[in-house]
Amino acid sequence: MNDKILSSDSLIIKRIFNLDTNAYADNGSLDVKSKELIGLTCSLVLRCDDCVKYHLGKCKEVGLTTDQVNEAMGIATLIGGTIVIPHLRRAFEYWEELHV
Amino acid sequence: MNDKILSSDSLIIKRIFNLDTNAYADNGSLDVKSKELIGLTCSLVLRCDDCVKYHLGKCKEVGLTTDQVNEAMGIATLIGGTIVIPHLRRAFEYWEELHV
Amino acid sequence: MNDKILSSDSLIIKRIFNLDTNAYADNGSLDVKSKELIGLTCSLVLRCDDCVKYHLGKCKEVGLTTDQVNEAMGIATLIGGTIVIPHLRRAFEYWEELHV
Amino acid sequence: MNDKILSSDSLIIKRIFNLDTNAYADNGSLDVKSKELIGLTCSLVLRCDDCVKYHLGKCKEVGLTTDQVNEAMGIATLIGGTIVIPHLRRAFEYWEELHV
Amino acid sequence: MNDKILSSDSLIIKRIFNLDTNAYADNGSLDVKSKELIGLTCSLVLRCDDCVKYHLGKCKEVGLTTDQVNEAMGIATLIGGTIVIPHLRRAFEYWEELHV
Amino acid sequence: MNDKILSSDSLIIKRIFNLDTNAYADNGSLDVKSKELIGLTCSLVLRCDDCVKYHLGKCKEVGLTTDQVNEAMGIATLIGGTIVIPHLRRAFEYWEELHV
Repeated sequence: MNDKILSSDSLIIKRIFNLDTNAYADNGSLDVKSKELIGLTCSLVLRCDDCVKYHLGKCKEVGLTTDQVNEAMGIATLIGGTIVIPHLRRAFEYWEELHV
Repeated sequence: MNDKILSSDSLIIKRIFNLDTNAYADNGSLDVKSKELIGLTCSLVLRCDDCVKYHLGKCKEVGLTTDQVNEAMGIATLIGGTIVIPHLRRAFEYWEELHV
Repeated sequence: MNDKILSSDSLIIKRIFNLDTNAYADNGSLDVKSKELIGLTCSLVLRCDDCVKYHLGKCKEVGLTTDQVNEAMGIATLIGGTIVIPHLRRAFEYWEELHV
Repeated sequence: MNDKILSSDSLIIKRIFNLDTNAYADNGSLDVKSKELIGLTCSLVLRCDDCVKYHLGKCKEVGLTTDQVNEAMGIATLIGGTIVIPHLRRAFEYWEELHV
Repeated sequence: MNDKILSSDSLIIKRIFNLDTNAYADNGSLDVKSKELIGLTCSLVLRCDDCVKYHLGKCKEVGLTTDQVNEAMGIATLIGGTIVIPHLRRAFEYWEELHV
Repeated sequence: MNDKILSSDSLIIKRIFNLDTNAYADNGSLDVKSKELIGLTCSLVLRCDDCVKYHLGKCKEVGLTTDQVNEAMGIATLIGGTIVIPHLRRAFEYWEELHV
């Protein structure tokens, strides 16, 4: 689907996609683990399941442990409230799938 | 799934779950019907279908009538705007399922 | 300011204001206390200070006690998370002002 | 499902549905294309897939082009951030379905 | 303040600012009036007073009339609900200031 | 004001405050810098100025650099969109005040 979006003529959307790729790359003053934890927790408090899944996949890739991911998601749930719990459930489920 | 979450070592998450159970119990200065209406309407304006369903189930359990639930959901839709309507639709549908 | 809004030619806005007045009136299957608690808590989870203040004023008018209001706001803070706390602080402050 | 909601006794909900129908009609100082673009982009930044789909259908009906819809959705994604992207993806997909 | 932000070394932020400037320029398949109405209404449903003010200024600049702006804000209030009303009030007030 | 809230009889609120204190303490599998970056960025995407200020103060305390804080806030702005910019501006301003 991304291909389809990128093949459209929308310059704004293409540039946002580019920015998104660069933002989490290993190129700044924060290490990639910190950046993925930011991506994960912001996605969780904003309650976007697809974004949470995406960042969980990246968290695993960059070597974050289950304890670290759980602690980060705990903080996000505290900040975002019990309204986050259904998304937290699906996040736990997906994290487990990633480790089968 | 809750079991899995609770078996994790996240203290924050466990405590939020405990708080959540206590918050709606018959133990304070508000009766359980008022508390469930609060849970239902806050879930609706925050547009969380799973939370709405959970509280609709509890609303039925504590004896709230269809008219009361509908009036509460009407107020929530007014506060949250037409963006709430798809969630309201699913809430109506689920409330009906609960009464078959 | 409401006068100015209502003197504009926007029919939608006028009708929303009318609906708003009717929604919390003593005219349905929920008593006014329950409706004001809904208005208060939904305003709190959506983090609108002006709306919270308005409903705190109404809560006092319809005879809700400090304990009832505090319990309702506690549930809203649990649902909405710690992001609600600054608004909760201002709500406590305003409730106190209302009782001087 | 709308029939079921409208057959309920909730006056608030009925009136909100009426307002909603009138708001996008060809009756004011904005043309219907501008109004549908507003409905579409507000639905996108508020991340309501069902609302986005509804307005995409209407956008097609009132004669908005793919380029216009894409540009509007690009602005909405910029305003709402990358958290909007999964909804943008589904919007692209649905817009394509509408044109098969 | 923008100068200070732009003089920081944050590439992401600089690029987002650039994108923002381009998004509303007279360069695409939508005219600037439509784009400003999108900026205004999305800002209103997301309840950002500073953003609303900014777009009201631009709306005036590009020649949108009071009736057009009011109709757009009415639709936004319907979509976003009564929680938007305090922001609508401040928007009316600011629009008036712009026309003294 | 916190004293006043804590002296109220609301058990839920007291426990949420306790949780909040523990969540960011040096006691888990994430270091305090990572936790403060999570607190900061989640506060920014949820657009809570008071929360952003609080976490900026803590970020300084735990030794995060200006570059690190700016990079984190850049990611948050990308995730949350241009609607975050007014809050970003105030965050920059406050970070500067903290370093005078």
